Amino acid sequence: VSHHTAAVIGLGLMGGSLARDLSMQGVRVLGYDTEPRHVESALREGILRQALDGSLSGVREASLVVLAVPVSVAPTVLENVAPLLDNAQVVTDLGSTKRSIVAAAERLGLGPRFIGSHPLAGDHRSGWEASRGGLFRDTVVYLCPTLQTGSEALAAARALWEGVGARTETVDAVEHDRRLAWTSHLHQAVSTALALALSDAHLVPGDLGPAGRSMTRLAASSPEIWTGIALENADALADALLALEERVRSLRESVRRSDSPAIHDAFAEARSWATR
Amino acid sequence: VSHHTAAVIGLGLMGGSLARDLSMQGVRVLGYDTEPRHVESALREGILRQALDGSLSGVREASLVVLAVPVSVAPTVLENVAPLLDNAQVVTDLGSTKRSIVAAAERLGLGPRFIGSHPLAGDHRSGWEASRGGLFRDTVVYLCPTLQTGSEALAAARALWEGVGARTETVDAVEHDRRLAWTSHLHQAVSTALALALSDAHLVPGDLGPAGRSMTRLAASSPEIWTGIALENADALADALLALEERVRSLRESVRRSDSPAIHDAFAEARSWATR
Repeated sequence: VSHHTAAVIGLGLMGGSLARDLSMQGVRVLGYDTEPRHVESALREGILRQALDGSLSGVREASLVVLAVPVSVAPTVLENVAPLLDNAQVVTDLGSTKRSIVAAAERLGLGPRFIGSHPLAGDHRSGWEASRGGLFRDTVVYLCPTLQTGSEALAAARALWEGVGARTETVDAVEHDRRLAWTSHLHQAVSTALALALSDAHLVPGDLGPAGRSMTRLAASSPEIWTGIALENADALADALLALEERVRSLRESVRRSDSPAIHDAFAEARSWATR
Repeated sequence: VSHHTAAVIGLGLMGGSLARDLSMQGVRVLGYDTEPRHVESALREGILRQALDGSLSGVREASLVVLAVPVSVAPTVLENVAPLLDNAQVVTDLGSTKRSIVAAAERLGLGPRFIGSHPLAGDHRSGWEASRGGLFRDTVVYLCPTLQTGSEALAAARALWEGVGARTETVDAVEHDRRLAWTSHLHQAVSTALALALSDAHLVPGDLGPAGRSMTRLAASSPEIWTGIALENADALADALLALEERVRSLRESVRRSDSPAIHDAFAEARSWATR
């Protein structure tokens, strides 16, 4: 499955990086971003063949349509492009939560041609300037089909991701979101909470040693992207945060009463988990 | 200040790395570790000129004496070497908490020649196999004097650390421990609690994306080292953990009630802190 023309809507870390890889493959990439300077950079660097205007009408030319926008706006963008899918063989998104976009695709009658994608390739950076070729190499991409996703769309999505060096795993959107609360969203939220606690205590990032720097790096992530994810996956994320709070409280109580065996057990159990 | 002979007691990540750097400088390094295989490796690699036996009597020959053992046992080791400091110009340790070792040095009458060191160079690794030359390059080393530390010992400690590429900052031991609770110990405890919560939820490290991996890396740290640190710095660490819990709980509550402005504020405030 090879595309002549792809439309990438959103030229941040994820969309920009995919646009770079597609462009390297000789695909004609059309792109849009609400930040005009991202579009200008992508045109200047020769990654975009053409900018899409706000009507997105150029999407009609694309056989591959990629939404790389915050999950909070993705369903609306999908609704906007729905009448423009004349040539689209596959429509996908790159969001970190999948229930709402998959439901939107089904509701809009795009089920057969839509399949959600979630590449595990993000970090705290964002924007076109963070994008780079090869971002998806050796990463896992979750594919979340709709109830109607056809085998052609599935094959096209697999080919897309394998073509940029990733490995795909197909998973139900509900299961995806529940799992990601634990494997990703929890970690972002904890890093954010750590940064806030340090800020309250009048510390600055430059005060931290290597451990503190690694634990607060994610706190620099985009508030727009993460507010959307937290809202989309609120229940599962709140459950994960509560479980973490209970473990923190228990460790704090062991520390407060200088309970050496309990503290050692906690560190030893965590190490045994982390090194398995 | 250049040393002919140095004694390094404890050949893990920190002690082993310092032994490597001293050996490279042509210092005659004598070493001891409770793990005979660490000593054997250090001798085989030519880093140690000679092993110290359990009596540590060879310490008598050293002008530089370094304790690189868990903070929980450091005062006892200092007591053991106290009668053996015939040639010692400076005695230091490498522990992550400083109150108890500085107090022990004062109690043992070693105040003039003792100064505590804490190189901010550790990570989750431990043992001789994790040690490497150049570990301290471009790091900060906190120096914590006793009430009696002499200018010669201070100068010798500064020369030691500058000689291996580090920058020193002198700080009172009480202030050091309070500060480190926030800049280091809190982060270790949170990573440990994260690992435990994930283990409770039946996840394994391989399930995590890049964010989760970076947040749980510290959970692999040595339980022996960290139990000692947590006990030494219990009050300050418990305070820091409580502050973190409050920020996690507040974020969780905002997420649970889908309070978009409150969630956005938290992510935005944390980002603004993290990128300053």
